[in-house]
Amino acid sequence: MPHPGSANSAPAAVRHVPATFGQVEIRQDPAWEQAFAAFLKDSERRQELLALFSRFSAGESAFDALMRRVAMRALCKRAGHGLQVGPNVVVKHPETFELGDCVFIGAQAMIQGRFDGTCKIGSHVWIGPQAYFDARNLVLEDYVGWGPGAKLLGSVHTGIPLDTPLIATGLEIKPVTVGFGADIGMNASILPGVHIGAHAIVGSGAVVTHDVPDYAIAAGVPARVIRDRRDKSLGQGEIRC
Amino acid sequence: MPHPGSANSAPAAVRHVPATFGQVEIRQDPAWEQAFAAFLKDSERRQELLALFSRFSAGESAFDALMRRVAMRALCKRAGHGLQVGPNVVVKHPETFELGDCVFIGAQAMIQGRFDGTCKIGSHVWIGPQAYFDARNLVLEDYVGWGPGAKLLGSVHTGIPLDTPLIATGLEIKPVTVGFGADIGMNASILPGVHIGAHAIVGSGAVVTHDVPDYAIAAGVPARVIRDRRDKSLGQGEIRC
Amino acid sequence: MPHPGSANSAPAAVRHVPATFGQVEIRQDPAWEQAFAAFLKDSERRQELLALFSRFSAGESAFDALMRRVAMRALCKRAGHGLQVGPNVVVKHPETFELGDCVFIGAQAMIQGRFDGTCKIGSHVWIGPQAYFDARNLVLEDYVGWGPGAKLLGSVHTGIPLDTPLIATGLEIKPVTVGFGADIGMNASILPGVHIGAHAIVGSGAVVTHDVPDYAIAAGVPARVIRDRRDKSLGQGEIRC
Repeated sequence: MPHPGSANSAPAAVRHVPATFGQVEIRQDPAWEQAFAAFLKDSERRQELLALFSRFSAGESAFDALMRRVAMRALCKRAGHGLQVGPNVVVKHPETFELGDCVFIGAQAMIQGRFDGTCKIGSHVWIGPQAYFDARNLVLEDYVGWGPGAKLLGSVHTGIPLDTPLIATGLEIKPVTVGFGADIGMNASILPGVHIGAHAIVGSGAVVTHDVPDYAIAAGVPARVIRDRRDKSLGQGEIRC
Repeated sequence: MPHPGSANSAPAAVRHVPATFGQVEIRQDPAWEQAFAAFLKDSERRQELLALFSRFSAGESAFDALMRRVAMRALCKRAGHGLQVGPNVVVKHPETFELGDCVFIGAQAMIQGRFDGTCKIGSHVWIGPQAYFDARNLVLEDYVGWGPGAKLLGSVHTGIPLDTPLIATGLEIKPVTVGFGADIGMNASILPGVHIGAHAIVGSGAVVTHDVPDYAIAAGVPARVIRDRRDKSLGQGEIRC
Repeated sequence: MPHPGSANSAPAAVRHVPATFGQVEIRQDPAWEQAFAAFLKDSERRQELLALFSRFSAGESAFDALMRRVAMRALCKRAGHGLQVGPNVVVKHPETFELGDCVFIGAQAMIQGRFDGTCKIGSHVWIGPQAYFDARNLVLEDYVGWGPGAKLLGSVHTGIPLDTPLIATGLEIKPVTVGFGADIGMNASILPGVHIGAHAIVGSGAVVTHDVPDYAIAAGVPARVIRDRRDKSLGQGEIRC
């Protein structure tokens, strides 16, 4: 078998580019678009709005993207300006969602609310593709970055009594909060009841079972705090984990 | 940059609610719906049935959900009552699937059978969103809970000879079984040949390379048994891992 | 609750079957299909081609699969023969993709290029379902196998200054390369700047933060090299990790 790929694999240089999403400034959506969403919200039942959203969920035209934003705005309890919703996103109980401005929801992500739950997502929050949120009692503060495939669980079965199948035992819904400017690594798992501090970083593939302090870097399974970002003796460059 | 999200992040109380899915009782699907599925199964070729299923795969109307259930019933070797199939689910070789009653398949999940394989899923099984099954020789017993994004592999390449690309070497298909009432954590990986015992719990993000005994809690990468749920000296409350 | 599943869970034998995908020989696509893709590429704008692709992204008919292949060929900088694209695949900036022959892209996968990036995928590459690629500077050499749900990150925020939200700090794009015949495990995470050697194996759920040598097996979080596949004293059979 030939091996032509090798010719392509010479080491390439690291490139430095400015942040794009995190630097975006809020611009008001056009008045007609806001009015369109308000009209839909007033005139359609929730089930029909969700069906409308799904009609445009897979499309890649500019019109599809517009209709996803409008339908989400009509579906959510509150949604700010500049919302972007990627293709194949799935939502449950969006009537409990409160979204800030400039929120990005990546392709194939799922946000699963609960009929009596709360889900607050701040402004300038970036949610990567294939993310999953069990958003029964969730707060993502402003400027949170959520890695591709990272997942969050918001509830746990009690497991009592022992000989009852776990999924038939009672459920504890525990609030999860992610602080201002925190960053959650690709494929990480955040478990029920956890608070991630402001400016904290959670490593890729980490499984976070306990609170992470402000400015901490936590990594591993289960996640341990491996560094304080404010400790200058350790250097700041190497934050992958 | 303002920090308005903080006002929302005061600690909220844990809520205890009854299990919903795990307590559902089996109700027969309407006779006409069963007859509709039987008619489709008799009159359409498999490829056309799968194409029919895909026409309704993304929709969020009640009709879309109904058509997913009917089409899956027509596609599967056997499917019980009360099947729920979320949006954007993908199936391969569903003609090898045998599903019990009250099975839930979450949004964006994929079940990948093999033309000559077997895939048996018991009653009251809950499969979370974004799950993946390499279901070549798979048994999920009754009341299994399968976490969001948890994945199962059913085969491994031999890797012999060494200088052949792994994906071109022979394949070993190894049966995987998950026992009654067991619970698989979010984002966990279950590897070929593994048996998960009845009432066992696999932690979030765990990579399970060896059998897990009945009532055991296994966690980590690779997963180790960290507790027996029947050991009362350790308490029962803290089962997250 | 009854326990009928148990009757099905008797241990079943391991089956050995030949590799299918890895042994496929390249066959030229029909001339008309190539001409169709060339016509689309010449006559449609990129945005319209992507919209066209999305019209067929969910379908399971043979025609849908054909249209996904044709549209991808028209969208990509280069695409070889025998391309297979599963349902619900999402691509960004496919104009930067260079695909070899016999490439398989599994269902629900996402490949996210960058407008000024490069993404080179060799021949006979198998990309599992639910995979994710941040493909800003990526090379997958020939005969790479990419496990279901495995994810790759191609860039990292600098995190400087500390009190700026991470997603608003500068971005470093670091090249990632995966060598000939290497195999990436299910749910693994590959981080920016990493080189995976030829014939290397990355275990399921591994988080790869550093280079992996040729023929090495790396596993864990973070991943460590646990074996050299050429070391015969350790046996070759047990490669799951």
